[in-house]
Amino acid sequence: MKREQLYSGKAKTIYATDNPDTLIAEFRNSLTAFNGEKKGEMEKKGYYNAQISKKVFEMLGGSGINTHFVSMLSNIEMLVKKVEIIKIEVIVRNIAAGSITKKYPMKEGTIFKSPVLVFDFKSDDYGDPMLNDDIAVALGVATREELAALRKLALRINELLVPYLDEKGILLPDFKLEFGRRDGEIILADEISCDTCRFWDKKTGQSMDKDVFRFDKGDISKAYEEVARRIVPEIFE
Amino acid sequence: MKREQLYSGKAKTIYATDNPDTLIAEFRNSLTAFNGEKKGEMEKKGYYNAQISKKVFEMLGGSGINTHFVSMLSNIEMLVKKVEIIKIEVIVRNIAAGSITKKYPMKEGTIFKSPVLVFDFKSDDYGDPMLNDDIAVALGVATREELAALRKLALRINELLVPYLDEKGILLPDFKLEFGRRDGEIILADEISCDTCRFWDKKTGQSMDKDVFRFDKGDISKAYEEVARRIVPEIFE
Ligand SMILES: Nc1ncnc2c1ncn2[C@@H]1O[C@H](COP(=O)(O)OP(=O)(O)O)[C@@H](O)[C@H]1O
Ligand SMILES: Nc1ncnc2c1ncn2[C@@H]1O[C@H](COP(=O)(O)OP(=O)(O)O)[C@@H](O)[C@H]1O
Ligand SMILES: [Mg+2]
Ligand SMILES: [Mg+2]
Repeated sequence: MKREQLYSGKAKTIYATDNPDTLIAEFRNSLTAFNGEKKGEMEKKGYYNAQISKKVFEMLGGSGINTHFVSMLSNIEMLVKKVEIIKIEVIVRNIAAGSITKKYPMKEGTIFKSPVLVFDFKSDDYGDPMLNDDIAVALGVATREELAALRKLALRINELLVPYLDEKGILLPDFKLEFGRRDGEIILADEISCDTCRFWDKKTGQSMDKDVFRFDKGDISKAYEEVARRIVPEIFE
Repeated sequence: MKREQLYSGKAKTIYATDNPDTLIAEFRNSLTAFNGEKKGEMEKKGYYNAQISKKVFEMLGGSGINTHFVSMLSNIEMLVKKVEIIKIEVIVRNIAAGSITKKYPMKEGTIFKSPVLVFDFKSDDYGDPMLNDDIAVALGVATREELAALRKLALRINELLVPYLDEKGILLPDFKLEFGRRDGEIILADEISCDTCRFWDKKTGQSMDKDVFRFDKGDISKAYEEVARRIVPEIFE
């Protein structure tokens, strides 16, 4: 069923399938940060992220969010609906952390009164610069209607994710989403994992995500495994 | 009437007056670019910019835009209404030029289908980073209602400026505005000059603005003088 490799990104490899409407996303163990400047590798990273993503996509799908997830073909291979990716990284921020606290006078840990949405232009060549609606439209990356739809979807996904994770003792300071076009609809694509979310332990405030790798905060394997244990306990049985 | 100096910025010095509702903005000859990294001086720069600003404020005021301009106290001293400056640089772009063509895949000279507005956080310490509405509100620099008002005012000012300058053989690729709060209203403040606008000669496309200084494009005095000759011919009589 798996056919030729279409694209090898920073964390996943994408393959064609016999069906032109689907793709296979293979979650790899490679880690990158700072637009590819820092590189690493972690055993089972692909496995944990694939399993976490699957579980989260299923939860969101069950709550009416249209996602690209179809099924798992193996521990690390996800069959997904093929979409035309919208070249925007949709970032939702609930608590100030990371880059935003460097770019603006905002203190790490500040809880935003309402979620702060940021749209970055998904472009490794340009270093993912921030967009506003006028620029996004001028660049042709999305229409105004699509931008409004992305905003609404991102906020809805946030509303679903925050309590879902809270129950598991995880705070969600921020996360990044990618969406794609398919049959005139916008659907949630890519992944939702320790690579694309900030997860903080609710009790200790400790990072359980890619920040452990970015800023050498400790044992990355332990961090990712702990998130997997809380979100997909069944894989440890 | 002039009292103590309140603030000396990169291009103007602000003085208090006997009236707590007004200030004096003195236009200096100093030139800076790239957030103060490049410095220079040009004879008569303050004079030309003050006279151009005055004339443009008068034109805008005559068309219903509320501006801070009161009167000229000398060639380079403008009496203005004191406002609480909103810490946003409101940038209006009609043609792609300068920083936007470096930050995104946009070719210099591309005419935008509709004006592209950009709000930058006015902060020398943070290097004027770009904002979006959510970030501006989270930072407390403006309310959503104010942001909407700024957008409307900036577009209206652009609609007035473009034909006004076109008549004088000047293209307006982009410009920067500052606004302030006063008695519950938002009024246009600061300056509109060769320092804050890109002015291109309509026939030759040549820069007649601070880009001549920024990128050593030729004789800056000649460029500013030429704009003054077209906008305020009366001062050369
Ligand atoms: N359903 C999908 N259809 C098509 N492309 C997708 C889909 N889901 C994700 N992608 C794209 O596949 C690539 C995933 O690989 P990744 O390693 O994350 O790449 P990147 O280095 O671009 O972040 C990304 O470019 C992503 O936008
Ligand atoms: N009407 C006004 N009331 C109060 N402040 C003003 C008014 N108009 C302009 N200003 C402020 O005065 C300063 C003008 O000086 P300038 O040399 O341009 O400073 P800067 O280096 O901050 O750009 C700016 O900080 C500007 O925001
Ligand atoms: Mg990716
Ligand atoms: Mg200034």
